[in-house]
Amino acid sequence: MSSFSPFHATPIFPRGFQCASRNVGLKPSARDLTLFASSVDAAAAAVFTRNHFPGAPIILGRETLRGGLLRAVIANSKVSNVATGPQGVENARRMARAAAAELGTSADRVLVSSTGVIGVSLPIEKIEQGVVGMAADLQSDPIVGAEGIMTTDSFPKALSAQVGDATMTWVAKGSGMIEPNMATMLAYIFTDAAFDAATLDRLLRRAVAESFNMLSVDTDTSTSDTCALMANGLAGTVDEAVFYEVLLAGCIRMTETLARDGEGATRMIRVHVRGALNDQEAHVVAKSIVNSPLVKTMVHGADPNVGRLLMAIGKCFDCTITPSTTHASINGFAVVRGGERLAFDDAVVRETLARDTVDLNVELGVGTGQARAYGCDLTKGYVEENAAYYSS
Amino acid sequence: MSSFSPFHATPIFPRGFQCASRNVGLKPSARDLTLFASSVDAAAAAVFTRNHFPGAPIILGRETLRGGLLRAVIANSKVSNVATGPQGVENARRMARAAAAELGTSADRVLVSSTGVIGVSLPIEKIEQGVVGMAADLQSDPIVGAEGIMTTDSFPKALSAQVGDATMTWVAKGSGMIEPNMATMLAYIFTDAAFDAATLDRLLRRAVAESFNMLSVDTDTSTSDTCALMANGLAGTVDEAVFYEVLLAGCIRMTETLARDGEGATRMIRVHVRGALNDQEAHVVAKSIVNSPLVKTMVHGADPNVGRLLMAIGKCFDCTITPSTTHASINGFAVVRGGERLAFDDAVVRETLARDTVDLNVELGVGTGQARAYGCDLTKGYVEENAAYYSS
Repeated sequence: MSSFSPFHATPIFPRGFQCASRNVGLKPSARDLTLFASSVDAAAAAVFTRNHFPGAPIILGRETLRGGLLRAVIANSKVSNVATGPQGVENARRMARAAAAELGTSADRVLVSSTGVIGVSLPIEKIEQGVVGMAADLQSDPIVGAEGIMTTDSFPKALSAQVGDATMTWVAKGSGMIEPNMATMLAYIFTDAAFDAATLDRLLRRAVAESFNMLSVDTDTSTSDTCALMANGLAGTVDEAVFYEVLLAGCIRMTETLARDGEGATRMIRVHVRGALNDQEAHVVAKSIVNSPLVKTMVHGADPNVGRLLMAIGKCFDCTITPSTTHASINGFAVVRGGERLAFDDAVVRETLARDTVDLNVELGVGTGQARAYGCDLTKGYVEENAAYYSS
Repeated sequence: MSSFSPFHATPIFPRGFQCASRNVGLKPSARDLTLFASSVDAAAAAVFTRNHFPGAPIILGRETLRGGLLRAVIANSKVSNVATGPQGVENARRMARAAAAELGTSADRVLVSSTGVIGVSLPIEKIEQGVVGMAADLQSDPIVGAEGIMTTDSFPKALSAQVGDATMTWVAKGSGMIEPNMATMLAYIFTDAAFDAATLDRLLRRAVAESFNMLSVDTDTSTSDTCALMANGLAGTVDEAVFYEVLLAGCIRMTETLARDGEGATRMIRVHVRGALNDQEAHVVAKSIVNSPLVKTMVHGADPNVGRLLMAIGKCFDCTITPSTTHASINGFAVVRGGERLAFDDAVVRETLARDTVDLNVELGVGTGQARAYGCDLTKGYVEENAAYYSS
């Protein structure tokens, strides 16, 4: 993206997209049901969790996306409708039908998402009754939709950017593709640019591989993760390369936002590994560092125990790692050279570790592979939230 | 082992083995240098960390073990002598020479171990001066040796068992093969049974694969992990099958002890996966469960959010997992059947999760592979200890 930023100061929707959210009684009072709608059918693509126990909405969503067209997304928070058997899938279908009836479209054009606790029956009647009249609530602020899908997120997440004559808007919740709390990563991307479903699918998979899939809050992969891209074409065609550049930039920015709001997180961690044998090995090493509890607690404590970085690199048993060519830096300060801890000014590195964002850069010196990963520190807040999620 | 327990109520040493430990000034006042010695040469085998940044004692230890004979182990705590370059290896050699001189043997019969912080120079002069006179301190309580190798362990760990006419003694520190705090897993096994080094090596690798290598406190693999087995033969020959049975039983018991004393741990978690496609896939699933931060915090909170178990099984993308044949139980109470959460008595499962030991049993229903893994809960204590280890 060089120095030009395509992002808007305040998120807006592309032409034809609106949203609404409500409390329908799943939570005591917070918004728990959200509708995103396009005024016309949109070409669509989506990627879903790889977990072997996908939620009912994922099972239905894979079927729905085969058509390559979406008109709306309906999403509830509080209950994820996972591990609920055939009844769960039927409830997801009823949710799609209810949204379709409200919007005057067909159920096969509605993507359903549910996020929250696993193994609890979806209160489908509350959703069916609650969605009635929501079409009249549709409005143009994406934040309203972002609010309705929050679970343990501490703030709503929306973002928009200009791409040629078109607009692209991201709405997401966290705190991880790597799942933080039986919460779930849901990310919806809306654009009025015109692309067919196959192209969207290809571009989305590429962008997700370098953004959301490189995010880890806690190594746990949700059963409900969903990232969908809808393009309703109302702004006409846009150059594909430019579109992809903005798509990727927004996905990375949203990934960083999710990392920063990981459960209990006080700092975002960005890892950049270069000089690996290939991109695949760089990916493994970057994930090993960003997932290491000891690196995460080092960042949390702002304590430059940099041997932990070497440990996290070195435990990638199947990667080509040579201590003598391994260098590392923290926010630009060299801390490791040739596999040995450098003498460095402890106070300076301690101060840099206490920043909002901690960049850990590693040079492996064995090839040209590189990868970036995104995560957050590990805190008592994480333990506290997750030691009592179900009952709270 | 059936119902017969070979373990002694209080640990003793096999014939010919003794130990001593002292404070030599690496720590303010706690014992920080330990010597284990056999009165005669012992056949020996050892396994070391797979981390790509092995500590200097590991580099030296691999060389030492080629001889297949050991007379002694010298181990210090506080500083691990890792990421210290050629000077570190030279310091490890000096440590072996100092112990050899004190005991009247040669340096190539002395295994060196160091545990503690990474990237700090070993205060070798303090060790060389401190070891002088330790031969006179040698005595017969293994706990004295266990005390000298503690870092963040909350209690010393030693264990002994009878095997035929011979004795087998385990001395270890934790809190993980999967490394908890730039601390390290060190485990020494002493016996007066007679076996050659090649046999010891084969038996040790088999036993370690099913015990220490299935332990995970926090997924981080130390740069110093060492498990060594010394057999001085003073009790003569012992049936190999019986010997292996006791060796494995003791390694598992010590693994459980290390899990129970994982950093910040309040509960031990044992996972038993059965019915996997093969043992390898069972291993992957068992490790995924025991390493999942959300399973670990679920146990910590004694909160039966059993969807997390399914999540942790389901994120083993490359394993054969079929929801319909997947069942799970917690301390014997069925909580999942056919991939769906069972209705269960919440209070009963909550009570069972609050026990000292939590057994998570999983049946995958796709084959005959099985594996057991050992770990502990994730607590605020873990975060607290590791957010400020280096400076403390």
